[in-house]
Amino acid sequence: MRRWNGWGDEQFNLELPAQGQSFLAERVGSGKPLTDASLESVCEKVPDTRLPADASVDELIDTSPETRVRHARGQSLPDWLAMRSGEFGVFPDGVARPHSSMEVQKLLQYARASNVELIPYGGGTSVAGHITPLASNRPVLTVDMGGMNRLIDLDRESQIATFGAGTPGPLVESQLRAHGYTLGHFPQSFELSTIGGWVASRSSGQQSLRYGRIEQLFAGGRVETLQGTLDLPTIPASSAGPDIREMILGSEGRVGLITEVKVRVTRLPEHESFHVVFFPDWDSARNACRSLVQNRTQLSMLRLSNAMETETQLALAGHPHLIGMLEKVLSLRGADDGKCMMTFGLTGSKHQCSSVRQEAKRICSQYKGIYTGTRLGKKWAEKRFTMPYLREALWQMGYAVDTLETATDWDNVDNLLGLMETSLREGLQARKESRNERAHVFTHLSHFYGQGCSIYTTYVFRVADSYDETLARWQHLKNTTSELIVRNRGTISHQHGVGKDHAPFLPVEKGELGMLAIRSLCQTFDPDGILNPKTLIE
Amino acid sequence: MRRWNGWGDEQFNLELPAQGQSFLAERVGSGKPLTDASLESVCEKVPDTRLPADASVDELIDTSPETRVRHARGQSLPDWLAMRSGEFGVFPDGVARPHSSMEVQKLLQYARASNVELIPYGGGTSVAGHITPLASNRPVLTVDMGGMNRLIDLDRESQIATFGAGTPGPLVESQLRAHGYTLGHFPQSFELSTIGGWVASRSSGQQSLRYGRIEQLFAGGRVETLQGTLDLPTIPASSAGPDIREMILGSEGRVGLITEVKVRVTRLPEHESFHVVFFPDWDSARNACRSLVQNRTQLSMLRLSNAMETETQLALAGHPHLIGMLEKVLSLRGADDGKCMMTFGLTGSKHQCSSVRQEAKRICSQYKGIYTGTRLGKKWAEKRFTMPYLREALWQMGYAVDTLETATDWDNVDNLLGLMETSLREGLQARKESRNERAHVFTHLSHFYGQGCSIYTTYVFRVADSYDETLARWQHLKNTTSELIVRNRGTISHQHGVGKDHAPFLPVEKGELGMLAIRSLCQTFDPDGILNPKTLIE
Repeated sequence: MRRWNGWGDEQFNLELPAQGQSFLAERVGSGKPLTDASLESVCEKVPDTRLPADASVDELIDTSPETRVRHARGQSLPDWLAMRSGEFGVFPDGVARPHSSMEVQKLLQYARASNVELIPYGGGTSVAGHITPLASNRPVLTVDMGGMNRLIDLDRESQIATFGAGTPGPLVESQLRAHGYTLGHFPQSFELSTIGGWVASRSSGQQSLRYGRIEQLFAGGRVETLQGTLDLPTIPASSAGPDIREMILGSEGRVGLITEVKVRVTRLPEHESFHVVFFPDWDSARNACRSLVQNRTQLSMLRLSNAMETETQLALAGHPHLIGMLEKVLSLRGADDGKCMMTFGLTGSKHQCSSVRQEAKRICSQYKGIYTGTRLGKKWAEKRFTMPYLREALWQMGYAVDTLETATDWDNVDNLLGLMETSLREGLQARKESRNERAHVFTHLSHFYGQGCSIYTTYVFRVADSYDETLARWQHLKNTTSELIVRNRGTISHQHGVGKDHAPFLPVEKGELGMLAIRSLCQTFDPDGILNPKTLIE
Repeated sequence: MRRWNGWGDEQFNLELPAQGQSFLAERVGSGKPLTDASLESVCEKVPDTRLPADASVDELIDTSPETRVRHARGQSLPDWLAMRSGEFGVFPDGVARPHSSMEVQKLLQYARASNVELIPYGGGTSVAGHITPLASNRPVLTVDMGGMNRLIDLDRESQIATFGAGTPGPLVESQLRAHGYTLGHFPQSFELSTIGGWVASRSSGQQSLRYGRIEQLFAGGRVETLQGTLDLPTIPASSAGPDIREMILGSEGRVGLITEVKVRVTRLPEHESFHVVFFPDWDSARNACRSLVQNRTQLSMLRLSNAMETETQLALAGHPHLIGMLEKVLSLRGADDGKCMMTFGLTGSKHQCSSVRQEAKRICSQYKGIYTGTRLGKKWAEKRFTMPYLREALWQMGYAVDTLETATDWDNVDNLLGLMETSLREGLQARKESRNERAHVFTHLSHFYGQGCSIYTTYVFRVADSYDETLARWQHLKNTTSELIVRNRGTISHQHGVGKDHAPFLPVEKGELGMLAIRSLCQTFDPDGILNPKTLIE
């Protein structure tokens, strides 16, 4: 069963190897876990529902405390602290689970008639507060799209698949795989996040180099709005005015509820493999990545860990003997302290992959890259969706972990990366309550474009003696660093969306007139602001 | 000097070989040209300007008749008929030529204060009526962006170039080439159309397979609006809400005037070549194209002529002896009547091109393709921008030529192509005034996507005894076929935009709520509707 207060399935636990524990203790000190609240105790706090009864929708709505608890939060660190402490603050007044577009229409009519706020809910994996209800005078109804989780149609000729918007990643891929196809969209939240959520939040997957971001995969579909049904026809490309799809991508529930998603799919590849290359230093490694992507070398995936992430990953990997041998070999070949690990993916026909592998190796070696084959790459692929489970393991040891991510142009990557890491590494010391605390901070680049790349920074710090102080520490790090990002040519999010957590930072990025355009779009479709209020736009 | 009443430079004339003339005469009869009006006679018809004097902008504005004549029309067939007959109907009241964003701001302030309509003008190459002024109670000022035609900045690391919006294709490429870069955007209008016009109308170039459409190339820039300056920051990719760039792409002057365009550029390729393959029949040829693109074979360009276009191109090519030999060889190898010509492009590193050539040839041969090397491909590349001059040659012989283009999913390509060709081929006979007239109709596919492709249909017909009847014939063909396109899952334009000519057909494609979104966007930025009225939205 799914964890009610953390990530993923209760049955699955990741253990941190002893070596990893001592590595962390050296860097930020030993952790002391906080006490978790029980599900029962939280359910007792759930107030009576304020939803007015309505025969047209009553059968769709569940107002039981446990369901409302399980839909009250996403996976951001504040969500996590709320779930662990049991201090949720606000619960939705009920959870609807529609099974068709028509039922979604009914819910919209009900919401308008009864002045109810609606929060669309996909996989509940938001790390930016998209689905967290805020205190409101209006009742709040969360709409869980999980009942609409089927492959509705597959057009093999046009390679377009139609899915119910609530279909989670594994069901997307397994239903396509049965026909020999793949979507190829693999965000880290893949196990739980849904295809509708990907569209609503402009998601990006680990193999976006080949398959594109969700913007490139989303071919059309159906959105239920308060003004009626918005049908987005599938057209390969068009110059007929602004693209309405692009107004739905990233609309985060403010325009309407996405019920059907049509996506561009691909035949399952003949070959796929992941390869690891080590570089002696960051400059060489980063330049190799830039060269690969600006050369249009057709990799399916590319990821570059900086020296601290490389060191951390090797320390946390277990198998100290094997890793020791690897490091010895690398050291002999010139990659010692400061070495950076690159992983690249090859996907396609055997002919394509063989040609691209040659080219990628040649470019890497121009930048002093040491090619180590597919062994570590295979490990990466096996564990690619398990990293969120590490948060649980760290939590049990008294550590909080969170990430900040952005994207910026190449000329600004090092500058922004440096600012972010410094801000996170030194931020705790700026508050007197955490003057002696340190954060362990490391970064990788994981989505590459000719113009620039994403920057994904992880930070680990000890939980404080209380939940409140732990939250305050996080809030300080998050706010100061987010402000730095948008003031320094970064986007407030490359792949997690805006939600409520990032909404205060959006105006710097979009500018006054950009915000005017977005606000006008939302108001046109939802003049009373009952759809996911305070999300995207404060 | 530029032709005032047709395409391109007066010095350049394309001649139709004798063989081509008889080919056309056989198909639609001999043509009898209409009489052209002179520039002088048209200038005499230009009324006094209605623009109120204003010291802040007077120096920017030219109200001389010739300038107003030269900015009154684009390159659609109705534009052409107006220019040739001298019956323009409406002229702009003046033409402004700003040299900076600040001067554009002044023009906007003037327009608002004096209730003047503004029409942004790039290269004047619209084939959909974007820049044609309509009769209005308000004075109309055309804003020619041609004064802003420089490379302002080139960031080599991020591969982003900043251009003045009025920079025409050749100046975009020559200014980049001097630094070793290319944009790679080559619409057929390349010689005259501008980078700002490409953005405003969502243009696509012949090598979009490699470089992407303008949507993928446009990284940001500056738009002057009636609400102030909209700055679009360059960010490689973002999940931070709807993308404002996408609201400007295709906005056709309704949101504001684009003054600076930042584009993603690429190092000049090590290798480029174009190759021609013949297929014995349409099914094999179309399937080969679909297979190539769905296999992600990294071609830079792909174009497939149907049998009639192949026959027409070979007939119009001249060199009957050489063509005869080619056809003999093809016939021996199985490609006779009904053969279809494919041209594909390779662009990139030598290694990439060599690998892709192998793969492309292998896939083509699976579909009975006969590879003929680069000789015809080279011809195509040499003549790629000269086709519009053919219109002039045909006009002199008494023929009118126009094109209709769309894009649709693969499962609908043959259906829609058939409907369009039949509608154009048989349309003239449906009107009693042209019952005995025929149109010569042929088609190519030229922009390919996993999901589908563009369809580009050319039709040639004899001009009537009068301009009015010629226009009526065109109007009939255009309207009935456009209606068919949008009723049958095609976009009203894949690469020409909406303008005024396609505006009546847009609502079918976008739907009621799609139109609501676009209308609301325009009204937010231009509540009084003074920017390019009736364009995009009727």
